[in-house]
Amino acid sequence: MWINPGGSSVDDARVRGVLENVKRPDVGLDVVHLAEGPDNLEYHYYEYLVTGQILDLIRKAEREGYQAAVIGCFYDPGLREARELVRIPVTAPAEASMHVAATLGHKFSIIVGRGKWVPKMEDNVNRYGLERKLASFRILNFTVKRMRREREGLERAVAREARLAVEEDGAEVIVLGCTVEAGFSRQLMRRLRVPVIDPVITSFKYAELLADLYSKLGLSHSKIFGYETPPKEEGWLK
Amino acid sequence: MWINPGGSSVDDARVRGVLENVKRPDVGLDVVHLAEGPDNLEYHYYEYLVTGQILDLIRKAEREGYQAAVIGCFYDPGLREARELVRIPVTAPAEASMHVAATLGHKFSIIVGRGKWVPKMEDNVNRYGLERKLASFRILNFTVKRMRREREGLERAVAREARLAVEEDGAEVIVLGCTVEAGFSRQLMRRLRVPVIDPVITSFKYAELLADLYSKLGLSHSKIFGYETPPKEEGWLK
Amino acid sequence: MWINPGGSSVDDARVRGVLENVKRPDVGLDVVHLAEGPDNLEYHYYEYLVTGQILDLIRKAEREGYQAAVIGCFYDPGLREARELVRIPVTAPAEASMHVAATLGHKFSIIVGRGKWVPKMEDNVNRYGLERKLASFRILNFTVKRMRREREGLERAVAREARLAVEEDGAEVIVLGCTVEAGFSRQLMRRLRVPVIDPVITSFKYAELLADLYSKLGLSHSKIFGYETPPKEEGWLK
Amino acid sequence: MWINPGGSSVDDARVRGVLENVKRPDVGLDVVHLAEGPDNLEYHYYEYLVTGQILDLIRKAEREGYQAAVIGCFYDPGLREARELVRIPVTAPAEASMHVAATLGHKFSIIVGRGKWVPKMEDNVNRYGLERKLASFRILNFTVKRMRREREGLERAVAREARLAVEEDGAEVIVLGCTVEAGFSRQLMRRLRVPVIDPVITSFKYAELLADLYSKLGLSHSKIFGYETPPKEEGWLK
Amino acid sequence: MWINPGGSSVDDARVRGVLENVKRPDVGLDVVHLAEGPDNLEYHYYEYLVTGQILDLIRKAEREGYQAAVIGCFYDPGLREARELVRIPVTAPAEASMHVAATLGHKFSIIVGRGKWVPKMEDNVNRYGLERKLASFRILNFTVKRMRREREGLERAVAREARLAVEEDGAEVIVLGCTVEAGFSRQLMRRLRVPVIDPVITSFKYAELLADLYSKLGLSHSKIFGYETPPKEEGWLK
Amino acid sequence: MWINPGGSSVDDARVRGVLENVKRPDVGLDVVHLAEGPDNLEYHYYEYLVTGQILDLIRKAEREGYQAAVIGCFYDPGLREARELVRIPVTAPAEASMHVAATLGHKFSIIVGRGKWVPKMEDNVNRYGLERKLASFRILNFTVKRMRREREGLERAVAREARLAVEEDGAEVIVLGCTVEAGFSRQLMRRLRVPVIDPVITSFKYAELLADLYSKLGLSHSKIFGYETPPKEEGWLK
Repeated sequence: MWINPGGSSVDDARVRGVLENVKRPDVGLDVVHLAEGPDNLEYHYYEYLVTGQILDLIRKAEREGYQAAVIGCFYDPGLREARELVRIPVTAPAEASMHVAATLGHKFSIIVGRGKWVPKMEDNVNRYGLERKLASFRILNFTVKRMRREREGLERAVAREARLAVEEDGAEVIVLGCTVEAGFSRQLMRRLRVPVIDPVITSFKYAELLADLYSKLGLSHSKIFGYETPPKEEGWLK
Repeated sequence: MWINPGGSSVDDARVRGVLENVKRPDVGLDVVHLAEGPDNLEYHYYEYLVTGQILDLIRKAEREGYQAAVIGCFYDPGLREARELVRIPVTAPAEASMHVAATLGHKFSIIVGRGKWVPKMEDNVNRYGLERKLASFRILNFTVKRMRREREGLERAVAREARLAVEEDGAEVIVLGCTVEAGFSRQLMRRLRVPVIDPVITSFKYAELLADLYSKLGLSHSKIFGYETPPKEEGWLK
Repeated sequence: MWINPGGSSVDDARVRGVLENVKRPDVGLDVVHLAEGPDNLEYHYYEYLVTGQILDLIRKAEREGYQAAVIGCFYDPGLREARELVRIPVTAPAEASMHVAATLGHKFSIIVGRGKWVPKMEDNVNRYGLERKLASFRILNFTVKRMRREREGLERAVAREARLAVEEDGAEVIVLGCTVEAGFSRQLMRRLRVPVIDPVITSFKYAELLADLYSKLGLSHSKIFGYETPPKEEGWLK
Repeated sequence: MWINPGGSSVDDARVRGVLENVKRPDVGLDVVHLAEGPDNLEYHYYEYLVTGQILDLIRKAEREGYQAAVIGCFYDPGLREARELVRIPVTAPAEASMHVAATLGHKFSIIVGRGKWVPKMEDNVNRYGLERKLASFRILNFTVKRMRREREGLERAVAREARLAVEEDGAEVIVLGCTVEAGFSRQLMRRLRVPVIDPVITSFKYAELLADLYSKLGLSHSKIFGYETPPKEEGWLK
Repeated sequence: MWINPGGSSVDDARVRGVLENVKRPDVGLDVVHLAEGPDNLEYHYYEYLVTGQILDLIRKAEREGYQAAVIGCFYDPGLREARELVRIPVTAPAEASMHVAATLGHKFSIIVGRGKWVPKMEDNVNRYGLERKLASFRILNFTVKRMRREREGLERAVAREARLAVEEDGAEVIVLGCTVEAGFSRQLMRRLRVPVIDPVITSFKYAELLADLYSKLGLSHSKIFGYETPPKEEGWLK
Repeated sequence: MWINPGGSSVDDARVRGVLENVKRPDVGLDVVHLAEGPDNLEYHYYEYLVTGQILDLIRKAEREGYQAAVIGCFYDPGLREARELVRIPVTAPAEASMHVAATLGHKFSIIVGRGKWVPKMEDNVNRYGLERKLASFRILNFTVKRMRREREGLERAVAREARLAVEEDGAEVIVLGCTVEAGFSRQLMRRLRVPVIDPVITSFKYAELLADLYSKLGLSHSKIFGYETPPKEEGWLK
């Protein structure tokens, strides 16, 4: 299950289109969005607003037998909370993309929309333990809304910043730092001749890997310490 | 305004008692709790459950002219979101206590209730940039509920772990890692002869400092980048 | 192609057995070993001795159309050199296992045979940028030869050290730090109730993921900077 | 007690002026300077030259019943030695300003006079454990003497470098890295719309906080390990 | 014994010339090169190609009574393997130069030929534990071959990048990051008025120091853990 | 010139004895002590008390044509100030010993007298950029005075802690963290079979190296930025 954590279907078709071409034939894919909420998560407050619905969907996914879920925003909102509540693997674009990027080159740069995004994302880089692999953040000065509206301008801006990341910051790998940047990686790789990580594709393929390990070995995130599930008897898990 | 982020008044009197003795005479204090929610935040999910009410209270505090607010849990829940929504200073026990502890000695240890708490708190230490000042976490094996119930046993356990932190981990300062541990610091300092940071007192006094700087200079958290407020016109800030 | 980087077939059947149960049905698997060389790589010098043959096999794999190769030793010998010489994805147990482990919990511990192994492996943890995710190394005091000979004693020792890693070092995830430890993860997970990363399985499944991304998108390691291929005209690449 | 650690009264009036407007009404303030010594501490040797007088003043402050002392130079000269000799809280501009800055935004930049200052100050950032919160040092190319002489040019230069720190280095908070830069923060905040930490005000207000905690709880710096007082019987403490 | 790890005598005279002027009169010097192999080590694969011959020479040096050996390439190829095989001190340009540079100033910059070199060298900086002392890498865009061919252009390029390292990156010390850059340090120091570390001279003088400590005290690298010698009875050490 | 930074001749003979056996025959050695001051530097305040005399001696050394000076205490007191005032190389036991130790093994442990010493020394480890190479501090619970008095007990205690550093902390190299521990390294190396760094010998031999580079190349510490000399015209350098 791929969850677009916004209250509109605006990204569903694009995500579905991107993933249909790369998913394994034996893997099912459902792309869902939320009943209500902002159509972007540029603010921590917006993340809070959608977390409850994300968690409900992920618990539903577990009940209905999905083998893995992806929270489709590069802030990885609700990832910690989700892992607390379920046993099925849950992943998200930033965590999956950064770890894969780290195995493809010495350092990666992340192309983000606005300076507003950097503090939270840099905290996430640190939380995932990957600050040494980060060459730089590169800022496009695009809101999420403008990213959706100006696809050509967005592609040009991403190409420009990606090139600067390679030339000035020593990046060997480019990570597209927003799921709305998805869909450009193939052309960018041809132009730039450097790996470009599409966060939608990469987190989905990483979810396939985790689902496989889960169904065959029972391997999933640890339930010791950090992701321990709240006790039923306290009554807050309905 | 001191916010006990649980859905019960169980901690209000203790917090008020601890603070009455140390607050500046010219500073007003209101201790409030939430309308509903768990009486502990040991789980990320519980943090999510109470964040909305915390944010409502903090926005109310700003509207009503409070000069500062404290979110009274050592996980610092909702701190980032709160700073996004208001201009008045907002602080919380972990951030304030760790920074003050860092100015009183070479390294500090944090005394926590359970191993469950460590990953999130260690992420916070890293987020606040203070991992080099951390000597260790010391674990009491007490839930929050048991902390409230067994005050004497709690005090003995804290004293034992604090002593081990000094002797084995080289801590020069002890930080009590839960607001329910508040109230012991004076006796502990006498017994251990090492500074013991009470998170309730320290975050409240730090809030006094920030309120002072805010009212006299207009100084508060940055609204550039990380704490930028969501635009009114998007309609999610009622 | 799975390469057992030793000059004997001693590990081939075990690796094949472990992988047959977990590989995707549409993925082919060849397990190969070297023509000559030590049957363990506990020494840097032994790593040097086998690197040439590893590189020959990986170039052969690329010529013959394999979509990915795994260098089957937890030291990840020759990984950098291999990526320099070919375009197909190449992975190895330590890199793949540590990154996957990092996505399953706050910190992981690595269970190694001898203290001799720690400096090189700790350098690799740092090289992969994951030192913050490492809880500890735990040492079994088993050589590779003894690991092969005393399977039951090995399993007991691994279980004991894994338990200590959880209880004393705060590990949430256990990584088996030698491909000869492969095959125990299922039982260990049942006993310890914590994720146990089998380096053979995990690096193979990670290779499946990379092969998929390579065949569908052309994504592989960066050829900018670090993995740039030596120029043909210098004549050293036969 | 505020100690201007130079052998002249040149900074006393400015410091007193800055502090009169922000100090708590119930707090007394004495601004003192040294009997002799350089009028700037741009050199380690100059720091050495004034340390003895600083320590004498701080011991006098303790004897006379002051509740806290501030060593008024952004190098924090003699801070460690002072804490060894007395029990009353002692603070200094760099330590106090950086910790407060760290609670107001993701990263801060420090505006310093000359490149000469950076190595010692960067060592202090590391010593206080805050290197992750540092966005950059920005250099004005002003000596301390010129700072005193060209107040308008100084203000313009600070504004320019502060703006660059925000735009190019991602700073969310500006720290003025010299007590002679004090007095500009209000105007700068209006122009730049980002928090500007005045080191004189901030360290004084932090001293108020520490004095409060000291007088009410007996809390001060740790006398275990690092700040242990030399034994009287060795005879070097007159 | 100084080992030029290339299959040609092209660097021997220059190295000998540089060292004759600085070596202690009581120390003998032999400069040797390999029987075959590339004349540069810009690729990991080339490093592999020459490692066997380097190790043979170092074991020969020990048998013949040399008191120390230097592996003459700034990648420090085979250093770990060599220390495993012999008891006499072995050093190499990067390790020796960086540690000496770290004692001469706050931060150093390394002047390298191409971006290709940076990932491996940055890994080495980390491995030697010196990342905090590194101001920057500065890239000349010279291959090793071109460095040999265009000595004047090389000197100009090094001077230019060294100056930028001081002015823009805050370097206090310059490290020439290739043994083919040797011979320029005297002129550069005069022009730039900043210490310039010649990697040939510095590693040789450091080898003199180690040889002295070895012959007088028996001090050499540790044979515990990382550099433990492979057991004779396994038969791979001929 | 070797400076024993205490006001007594108590350590002179021992230092001279240790060094006579290892110094180069062509190098002159003068061991001096201070006119007055404590006979130990266990306190920051004592360091301050002796700094002036140390600096006077080092400036005298430069005037009289010495090629290098060593400040003989493992706190490295006055090292920064000294480098500011003179051009001749100045070194000290901690800096020299730690860097040499870092080239002899993966990690080192430092054997110190008391817990009091650790914060300052750990700050120095960080300042020299070597925290990653530090396995641990091991504490003897000996004052400097007792170290002088109980030589046999000291030797036994050092041997015991050194062994624990190897077995429990993974140290490959032992650094004796006080110049009063000098003289034991030979026996310890025989017993423990691991390199033991004598801080007196190592810093003196490192000074020989620096003196050699200084006299032949003019290489010494950088006078850019951190060690810039105070201007004569300000009149504080008599």
